[in-house]
Amino acid sequence: MSHYLAEFVGTAMLVFLGDGVCANCTLAKSKGQNSGWIVVTIGWAFAVGVPAFLFQDFSNHFNPALTIAFAVIGKFPAAQVPGYVVAQMLGGVVGATLVWLAYLPHWAETEDKSAKLSIFCTIPAIRNYPANFLTEFLATAVLVFSLATVGTVKVADGMGAIVVVSAIIFILGAALGGPTGYAMNPARDLSPRIAHAIFPISGKGDSDWAYAWIPVFGPIIGGIAGALLFAMIF
Amino acid sequence: MSHYLAEFVGTAMLVFLGDGVCANCTLAKSKGQNSGWIVVTIGWAFAVGVPAFLFQDFSNHFNPALTIAFAVIGKFPAAQVPGYVVAQMLGGVVGATLVWLAYLPHWAETEDKSAKLSIFCTIPAIRNYPANFLTEFLATAVLVFSLATVGTVKVADGMGAIVVVSAIIFILGAALGGPTGYAMNPARDLSPRIAHAIFPISGKGDSDWAYAWIPVFGPIIGGIAGALLFAMIF
Amino acid sequence: MSHYLAEFVGTAMLVFLGDGVCANCTLAKSKGQNSGWIVVTIGWAFAVGVPAFLFQDFSNHFNPALTIAFAVIGKFPAAQVPGYVVAQMLGGVVGATLVWLAYLPHWAETEDKSAKLSIFCTIPAIRNYPANFLTEFLATAVLVFSLATVGTVKVADGMGAIVVVSAIIFILGAALGGPTGYAMNPARDLSPRIAHAIFPISGKGDSDWAYAWIPVFGPIIGGIAGALLFAMIF
Amino acid sequence: MSHYLAEFVGTAMLVFLGDGVCANCTLAKSKGQNSGWIVVTIGWAFAVGVPAFLFQDFSNHFNPALTIAFAVIGKFPAAQVPGYVVAQMLGGVVGATLVWLAYLPHWAETEDKSAKLSIFCTIPAIRNYPANFLTEFLATAVLVFSLATVGTVKVADGMGAIVVVSAIIFILGAALGGPTGYAMNPARDLSPRIAHAIFPISGKGDSDWAYAWIPVFGPIIGGIAGALLFAMIF
Repeated sequence: MSHYLAEFVGTAMLVFLGDGVCANCTLAKSKGQNSGWIVVTIGWAFAVGVPAFLFQDFSNHFNPALTIAFAVIGKFPAAQVPGYVVAQMLGGVVGATLVWLAYLPHWAETEDKSAKLSIFCTIPAIRNYPANFLTEFLATAVLVFSLATVGTVKVADGMGAIVVVSAIIFILGAALGGPTGYAMNPARDLSPRIAHAIFPISGKGDSDWAYAWIPVFGPIIGGIAGALLFAMIF
Repeated sequence: MSHYLAEFVGTAMLVFLGDGVCANCTLAKSKGQNSGWIVVTIGWAFAVGVPAFLFQDFSNHFNPALTIAFAVIGKFPAAQVPGYVVAQMLGGVVGATLVWLAYLPHWAETEDKSAKLSIFCTIPAIRNYPANFLTEFLATAVLVFSLATVGTVKVADGMGAIVVVSAIIFILGAALGGPTGYAMNPARDLSPRIAHAIFPISGKGDSDWAYAWIPVFGPIIGGIAGALLFAMIF
Repeated sequence: MSHYLAEFVGTAMLVFLGDGVCANCTLAKSKGQNSGWIVVTIGWAFAVGVPAFLFQDFSNHFNPALTIAFAVIGKFPAAQVPGYVVAQMLGGVVGATLVWLAYLPHWAETEDKSAKLSIFCTIPAIRNYPANFLTEFLATAVLVFSLATVGTVKVADGMGAIVVVSAIIFILGAALGGPTGYAMNPARDLSPRIAHAIFPISGKGDSDWAYAWIPVFGPIIGGIAGALLFAMIF
Repeated sequence: MSHYLAEFVGTAMLVFLGDGVCANCTLAKSKGQNSGWIVVTIGWAFAVGVPAFLFQDFSNHFNPALTIAFAVIGKFPAAQVPGYVVAQMLGGVVGATLVWLAYLPHWAETEDKSAKLSIFCTIPAIRNYPANFLTEFLATAVLVFSLATVGTVKVADGMGAIVVVSAIIFILGAALGGPTGYAMNPARDLSPRIAHAIFPISGKGDSDWAYAWIPVFGPIIGGIAGALLFAMIF
């Protein structure tokens, strides 16, 4: 399998599973409706950790902010960045489409348009663009710093990828997800937002394009800051 | 221990523990009543992961959909399929029987007939056969694709079986369990349904045979699709 | 450290941490009050798993039912059984005493006498001695069968003890704890019950001695059954 | 990276993530508000476990009580204690500052002054200084005893640090966090309390200096007791 295919399939899986958790906790009549933040945070942890484990021998970025940040500090070849980002963004659209299909009869049963949007992409708890940007910046800085540092620790067994990645994603959601929903990844926010805009989801509202740039540029710039911090102190 | 005996004992354990979690969360006066989706999803994760760990040196399919799908892509000898399926289906009946016995005084205390059935087998949140089939198809496709891919990753330590299998089962329940209750396995749905029909469970209702084919054929066909996807891209 | 000292200290730690979880979830004004079954089950999982990990190079039974069952099938020297059981039972009393001290101002604030007893020992959800016995029998049979089987799997890394033991304890609580509170261990039930009877706990009620024999003999006989099943099929 | 820098960065990360969990569960309009004790305890577990994993090749005390206790029993060079403690205390202030910034618009939305303080430092459930001291003493004694004992167990794989440390922190919170909120660490209590006093947090109250000495001296003296117990029995 090529690195690009791994990025495409892995990101599709990540978004299918992660946005699936949001659908389960949110949609009317779903068995997991209102099961709370603990299901969301543990859910997203393994939505990222399981594909990160499965594709570790090929490629497991699944996140343009991570790919770009690693390229900036020379940990990833710059020439492959465009291919990676395209594969990741396309994977995100496919994953979101699968969520729509897996929960097909539940969209019409759900009144709240904003709840439906929140399954595809993040919505800030308090709309304040500079503060929302800062939160996404800080969360992604810790994410990229942590994932860069993982490479310096001896984790010999393959299952380490599940344990380490899931632990990092879990604690970022538990600690820093409160204000903005911890997008930290354009392929997990912009791609499903595009899917939300394109597909005939029953009773959907608008796709909140005014906010869309924050979970793209907050993560990209925060990720670069985290990578630079890593390069500076290690 | 023969492979067939491992499949029989392991599937009995899987269903005893998994359906036990449902009984605990559902039955009147049980100490875990209404403890919610987080207990169900983490519970089923280890209900599958613990026997998958214990019997890993012998055999740990515990699921006809997995056995058939692996046979289709040549990862499992076709001649052993019938023996495996029989052992798995019988194990499922034994596991469900043990749940009935472990919670013996609680059945009479529980009014809701549908709640009692839901301990043995899945009931869709919204009854829509094509959509329910699609959800089981997609969930089992991801399950079999993931379990096939695990074989390509170096997991040297035996405890990896608990970590990896439990993580996969957890995220499938958290992400895709909302619409149909993630059967993904005929030995976990049809076998306990048979036990429900046979045993004199206090105040039971009908066994919902009209729905029974979906958590059999959705998983089998979805599992084959997941295996083919694996064969195609790896 | 001698094996006996490890059993004494490890069982004290197990009961201190496990009964501490019950105190936290139950006592008035405690920060974890009413935090539910998920905290109880994950809590007990690590209350057993952490000392099982720490003392693995010395001895980590911490349970007379396990020690006796292993002796019956010849996996443990019969001559050491009395010393192990004494160390375990004394450890259980010390652990329960520490819980009383750690939550000292909370006992007087809690009205419910039965809630206070339930921190020290198990109380059945529905009082039915044969059924309660059967539940403890079945849960401990699965416990001992599983722990015996662990010895047949290659778990090379020390952290495996936390992962495997905690997973087994978690799923037994989640699946089979509903009817009786999953004692499965006389040192975790009888010893703290003795502590409850002895110490001047503010506003305590009686120690329910009529039920005390079930979480002693159910686990011992169930444990032997689980060990024999192991010896038979492996 | 020097040991001191690792202690500074690691403690900052620990407090940023751990106090972030408290902010998420507490602040008005935060997406994790009122998500309960399970998020707090699993959250703090990985808030400690993730940096303990990332910096394990350099230094991962992140706690003056641990550093002092290890020095007392000769497991850590006494000459480095002052440098470690300074790095840890400064890291705690930086971590708390980042929590303030990450949740910037939420402070003004939250009425309850005591809730805002509880994000930075611990507040006892029942104010009783001797009893509160005893609880912090016991919890930190178990913490330091356990972490000293970890060094005697063969954990070969780097990911063991996440698994073992997170399990220990989780069970201490679940079992012994009820009365005082399990500070167990001056850098996690006094340093953020100083940050609370210094920064212009919107609508803040006083910093409860009357209680501040308990989560400093309870942990330090309890930690020494735990280390001495370790030295005595191993």
